[in-house]
Amino acid sequence: MTSQSQQKQAGPATERVRVKRLPKRAAYDRETINAILDEGLISHVGFALGGQPFVIPTIYARVGERLFIHGSAASRMLREVRGAIPVCVTVTLLDGLVLARSAFHHSMNYRSVVMLGSATEIAGIEEKTAALKAVVEHVIHGRWEHVRWPNEAELHATMVLAMPIVEASAKVRTGPPLDDEDDLKLPVWAGELPLRLTPQAPKADASLAPAIDPPQYVTNYRR
Amino acid sequence: MTSQSQQKQAGPATERVRVKRLPKRAAYDRETINAILDEGLISHVGFALGGQPFVIPTIYARVGERLFIHGSAASRMLREVRGAIPVCVTVTLLDGLVLARSAFHHSMNYRSVVMLGSATEIAGIEEKTAALKAVVEHVIHGRWEHVRWPNEAELHATMVLAMPIVEASAKVRTGPPLDDEDDLKLPVWAGELPLRLTPQAPKADASLAPAIDPPQYVTNYRR
Repeated sequence: MTSQSQQKQAGPATERVRVKRLPKRAAYDRETINAILDEGLISHVGFALGGQPFVIPTIYARVGERLFIHGSAASRMLREVRGAIPVCVTVTLLDGLVLARSAFHHSMNYRSVVMLGSATEIAGIEEKTAALKAVVEHVIHGRWEHVRWPNEAELHATMVLAMPIVEASAKVRTGPPLDDEDDLKLPVWAGELPLRLTPQAPKADASLAPAIDPPQYVTNYRR
Repeated sequence: MTSQSQQKQAGPATERVRVKRLPKRAAYDRETINAILDEGLISHVGFALGGQPFVIPTIYARVGERLFIHGSAASRMLREVRGAIPVCVTVTLLDGLVLARSAFHHSMNYRSVVMLGSATEIAGIEEKTAALKAVVEHVIHGRWEHVRWPNEAELHATMVLAMPIVEASAKVRTGPPLDDEDDLKLPVWAGELPLRLTPQAPKADASLAPAIDPPQYVTNYRR
């Protein structure tokens, strides 16, 4: 599978986050990495217990140079990860199908970030509330000021972990298929089929008063 | 975060794939698991090297009770994973945002599958070609018969791994927010914002003959 060049100036922070396969697709600059993290909604958090890896989909938010992940205080995943064990957090955005003339050169356009490190728990009430605000605002900007904020029991029932964004690499593929020259004459359609995560019509909760319309940050939502 | 009940008859194949957190969201029946695997386009493959987990986005396909993942024969991930080390493969479909009256009850609607096991390499030319056909057809049904099939050099440059779908669990959240009763009177819009991965207009490759129109399996594409 071939790729469009996506060379950036910055190098990897460490050897273990260097993109080995198709290095032309790699990017290590903070701007590329942050843009991917800020657009994604779900991260996949990897951790290993006794050599067995687990990969769990998890909501997150980036604030500055830290990634917050959160969930129930009863979550086995979070309880393991807060022990500062080695973690890998991956965020992948799928941008489209790449349809080549040959099966071999089929690919996908995507942007992904792989982050290594370890996470520590955010315990202070103020910092935890700020992190939860960041998560809500990351998912849907404008929402936090309208909702009821977490009370003490809810904060207690929620775990927030923070991971520094230090060892991170992005991998990006864009553009058309890159077919072998001999295949260009084949009578088969080739190109890209872009894919987008698109909001559908909002569904009001059944117990919502009919006078309450969905706000603009819902009706105009897009990633 | 609360959930809609999604109880199924089947139990987990092993204790380590039992969903601990919010077990009402769990499903272990093959039908639920297969439907999620068949709709997804990207899996996140987790493996650990010396205690450090790595999570890599990877194209895949399900055939019967096996999952095929594939990539370059030069891929470090695939070369490590084919050593039959413990692997976790996770597929997540995001179905929408769940907007509650309280920050605490915000959630997402999603369907995910977590599979544990190990993978072995598919080396025979016929079986490998069949697996690659399955991957292309999984991504875009109807494509295989129109493209040039892999030649020997391409098969050699491609690695295909197979993982039996034995230890797998699904987790599914559907439906509206589940707010605390005291919050129902708050004057804030609450409900679901469904999200869908939607194809945009196909972009023909620049070197495509103008007489070749995109086929129906492209123009009518949907997951």
